Amino acid sequence: MRYDMTHEANNEEIQRCIEECLLCLKACNYCFTACLQEENASHMAECIRLTRECADICAYAASAMSRQSPFVVEICNLCATICEICAKQCAQHDHEHCQECAKACRSCAEVCRGMAS
Amino acid sequence: MRYDMTHEANNEEIQRCIEECLLCLKACNYCFTACLQEENASHMAECIRLTRECADICAYAASAMSRQSPFVVEICNLCATICEICAKQCAQHDHEHCQECAKACRSCAEVCRGMAS
Amino acid sequence: MRYDMTHEANNEEIQRCIEECLLCLKACNYCFTACLQEENASHMAECIRLTRECADICAYAASAMSRQSPFVVEICNLCATICEICAKQCAQHDHEHCQECAKACRSCAEVCRGMAS
Amino acid sequence: MRYDMTHEANNEEIQRCIEECLLCLKACNYCFTACLQEENASHMAECIRLTRECADICAYAASAMSRQSPFVVEICNLCATICEICAKQCAQHDHEHCQECAKACRSCAEVCRGMAS
Repeated sequence: MRYDMTHEANNEEIQRCIEECLLCLKACNYCFTACLQEENASHMAECIRLTRECADICAYAASAMSRQSPFVVEICNLCATICEICAKQCAQHDHEHCQECAKACRSCAEVCRGMAS
Repeated sequence: MRYDMTHEANNEEIQRCIEECLLCLKACNYCFTACLQEENASHMAECIRLTRECADICAYAASAMSRQSPFVVEICNLCATICEICAKQCAQHDHEHCQECAKACRSCAEVCRGMAS
Repeated sequence: MRYDMTHEANNEEIQRCIEECLLCLKACNYCFTACLQEENASHMAECIRLTRECADICAYAASAMSRQSPFVVEICNLCATICEICAKQCAQHDHEHCQECAKACRSCAEVCRGMAS
Repeated sequence: MRYDMTHEANNEEIQRCIEECLLCLKACNYCFTACLQEENASHMAECIRLTRECADICAYAASAMSRQSPFVVEICNLCATICEICAKQCAQHDHEHCQECAKACRSCAEVCRGMAS
């Protein structure tokens, strides 16, 4: 039964996934603000847009996991999807904050996908 | 006692304030996305930054009011402050989405300040 | 291409879905607080838990739609799922706030499912 | 000028405050779910209500700090206020989750108040 998911999932696994989401939240928000300060913000528009999306779902997922939401599977799946797309976007830019963000997103996506499987 | 605030406040007043926050949330988020698509997004950087801030606090305030949070006074005060600063920023730009957003922010700020007084 | 979803979707349809989410947010938060004040809150525990879940995803979905998030389809699908489960839970209780909430959740679920299809 | 707050604030101080908020978010959400499962949830109603309030503002504050929001001072002040009231409520209950939550809230309140001063 889906409601028991959080009991079945290893507690250590949940804690690790929460930490990954929080790291990704911080990397995305840092990248968002840094992108806005780049000389050519228009070039960074998609990155700005996606880091906001990704920061929001990561905050939401971390909160959901910490309250043992019955929807952790679905939420982590959505979080993984958004992280993957944000990672691809950020990876296209050479700025250190984008590269760091891409790394955090990829790592978070992987752990979220694991949680959801 | 502060916990009784929502009982003292006129229910119609709360409903109106919730609606103002939701209108402002929509105007800010619309403006955020439209600003990112402007040719010179760098020129819009502060607007992009503040519309995100404002959309987030409006969503938070509307949710808090609808659950009769004991902190409605403090939250509405913070919402009013952020709306006022976002309104000033948006008002500096001629784009219709900025002007519309400035109007929604000013209106929301006023009603939130009323709620908090 | 998924990124064009919001352009394909009828704007009126999006506006209606945003409104449904905001109505559901208000109904869920109202029910949450009312359930906590019922004499037998233990009996309402699952309702309290799910109305919080549902209010949170509705706020998230409304905000995502208003900023034309590229993930509107996935988010609306998740929102529909949570609304449906919350509706079933609330429908089991005779309290007016639960019945009203169940109605708002069902309506929101239906419109979100439409948005996502 | 208020906009420079995050530049003046020691970066280490901000990082510590973000971590405190995230710890408090987790403690509050854990306590929320545990309270709902207590035999006498009615007795825990105010605790349930306040841990939700506190978890929400902590998530909001952590996200705001990580994006260097211009409103960090005001947001951290509000977060401190809510944490203090949640701490007092939780401290009244003997459950381990309540005592742990009270501790996390007090610690977070102190650091947030420091950030805001």
